[in-house]
Amino acid sequence: MLKFDEKNELNSVNGALAIRLELEKIVDEICNEGYKNICWLGIGGTYASCLQAEVHMKEYSALNFFVENAAEYIHTGNKKVGKGTIVIISSVTGSTSEMVDGVIKAKNAGAKVIGFVDYPDTKLAKLSDYLISYPKNEQLKFFMTADRFMYNAGEFDEYYELYHELDEHLAQCLVQVEKSADELGELIAKKHMNDKIHYFVGAGNQYGATYSYAMCYWEEQHWIRTKSIHSAEFFHGMFEIIDRDTAVTVFIGEDSQRKLSERVANFLPRICANYNIIDTKDYELKGISEKFRGHLSHLLMRVITSRIDVHLEKLNCHPMEIRRYYRQLDY
Amino acid sequence: MLKFDEKNELNSVNGALAIRLELEKIVDEICNEGYKNICWLGIGGTYASCLQAEVHMKEYSALNFFVENAAEYIHTGNKKVGKGTIVIISSVTGSTSEMVDGVIKAKNAGAKVIGFVDYPDTKLAKLSDYLISYPKNEQLKFFMTADRFMYNAGEFDEYYELYHELDEHLAQCLVQVEKSADELGELIAKKHMNDKIHYFVGAGNQYGATYSYAMCYWEEQHWIRTKSIHSAEFFHGMFEIIDRDTAVTVFIGEDSQRKLSERVANFLPRICANYNIIDTKDYELKGISEKFRGHLSHLLMRVITSRIDVHLEKLNCHPMEIRRYYRQLDY
Repeated sequence: MLKFDEKNELNSVNGALAIRLELEKIVDEICNEGYKNICWLGIGGTYASCLQAEVHMKEYSALNFFVENAAEYIHTGNKKVGKGTIVIISSVTGSTSEMVDGVIKAKNAGAKVIGFVDYPDTKLAKLSDYLISYPKNEQLKFFMTADRFMYNAGEFDEYYELYHELDEHLAQCLVQVEKSADELGELIAKKHMNDKIHYFVGAGNQYGATYSYAMCYWEEQHWIRTKSIHSAEFFHGMFEIIDRDTAVTVFIGEDSQRKLSERVANFLPRICANYNIIDTKDYELKGISEKFRGHLSHLLMRVITSRIDVHLEKLNCHPMEIRRYYRQLDY
Repeated sequence: MLKFDEKNELNSVNGALAIRLELEKIVDEICNEGYKNICWLGIGGTYASCLQAEVHMKEYSALNFFVENAAEYIHTGNKKVGKGTIVIISSVTGSTSEMVDGVIKAKNAGAKVIGFVDYPDTKLAKLSDYLISYPKNEQLKFFMTADRFMYNAGEFDEYYELYHELDEHLAQCLVQVEKSADELGELIAKKHMNDKIHYFVGAGNQYGATYSYAMCYWEEQHWIRTKSIHSAEFFHGMFEIIDRDTAVTVFIGEDSQRKLSERVANFLPRICANYNIIDTKDYELKGISEKFRGHLSHLLMRVITSRIDVHLEKLNCHPMEIRRYYRQLDY
């Protein structure tokens, strides 16, 4: 299978799950000391992951949490951020300028920072009050953090049941999903490699996935135009430009907002003949309870879309590493 | 001037400003009784207006406020909504199904509703605990409400100074801006009437404007494809697909996030030769203090873009009233 290292994938996910012990100590210490609120701070792809953590928490939690875009926070501020605020960030490079400035501003206001920063010898790692350095798996890290805060607040009693299942089965499940999705990935890549524009639609923890997959993969790495739209908003204007040939992909997950995307998927065939439905429900998760599948939909979608990426990259002879402008120019 | 009734425009804005006395009574009563938090609830265009109210309040206020998309709220819920929550809505038809269901859910949770509903004999009007029925001017109504809540919380001492100026000058200012923008509107309409896709970029109270102008006007009413993107996010992926001929319009306002959009405007000429900058700063606001201009940027942009609309409608022989699917089909 193209660009697929099974052992590496298994190790990556299992290693991410293993940081849970370290993470629990951090979150438990914060909860014991007391805190005022939780600020998920991101920009670009990490902002999308923040949106996923937010909608996940909304389903269960009465804690005080919110998402901030780092660049907006720098300029507009947010009076909720201050002493007692726990800022949660994730960064690969550890150097994204808006994130550095945003974290400094939040710390000056009195906030403390949990930083998932892949490289420890970087600005964002040094600014983190609680640092965890382990590569990739950003969304899993965020959800583990959210789940521990909710568990400590008595809002998520199934915490140990869930993570027992994930420790045992998640890595293997994701590898199996990725393998099963390869054919679909190739089909979609072949069908859409020449698209002038492609629409991605999703809801719940899939909204962050559509937003970042459209922007951080197709636009940034494949140089194909996209629009991402929330399934709830699809019917409030955007759908007027859909016709027979418009390329649309709907991401359907299994969380609380599944119905919003099913509504789009059910309506689309009436007005469009060039759509794809990717439904996480079509993939087996051996060893995972039915009730936990919704928590994992975004992780499934990530490995499914990664199969589109590898085929699209090859078909379009466009290496995903190259950038026209990002970090190539001053702006 | 095409489709422009000056007297009607003046009366519309002055009438909206005149509801302030009624609105103040409502907000003052709520503040005297005490409340827990404020939930701006919307969908589609009204969701965009909620985002504008939110970013405006963020700049000044430590009150507990947040935005909810009605359809998401119906499915995921929000544990912050309950007794003591003031839900604020706006609706022209009074019948949008997600709004009706969302308001019923919020009321069942114990919330009270301030409803700006254009037609009083409608479902949403009847569901409102505090109803104000006056047509159009949604954003002005929302900002007046936000400002009164902030004034009562001691966060906006300039309230009377601002509204004294608006009562005196706003309607006339907006009419003048609209007149000055007609030439630009025609230029942009001629230049972009055949666009395959058009990008709108904005920040602060202009983000809601870019989101809703792209979706509720170009997509829904002109049937032209668009993508809207926050200026802060522009540099985190999307800009890779901009080239010489890509059609881009940047909305620049004068609030706290002006710099984010200026950054886009300054960078664009290096990579693109088909862009427009619409900067509210270019328009005179006679009688309005410099310090209040940022509060009004979104109102200026609305009248400026309305001049693009009337010309685009005429040039493309596409009446803005027609819909392909919206409320034409069951979905």
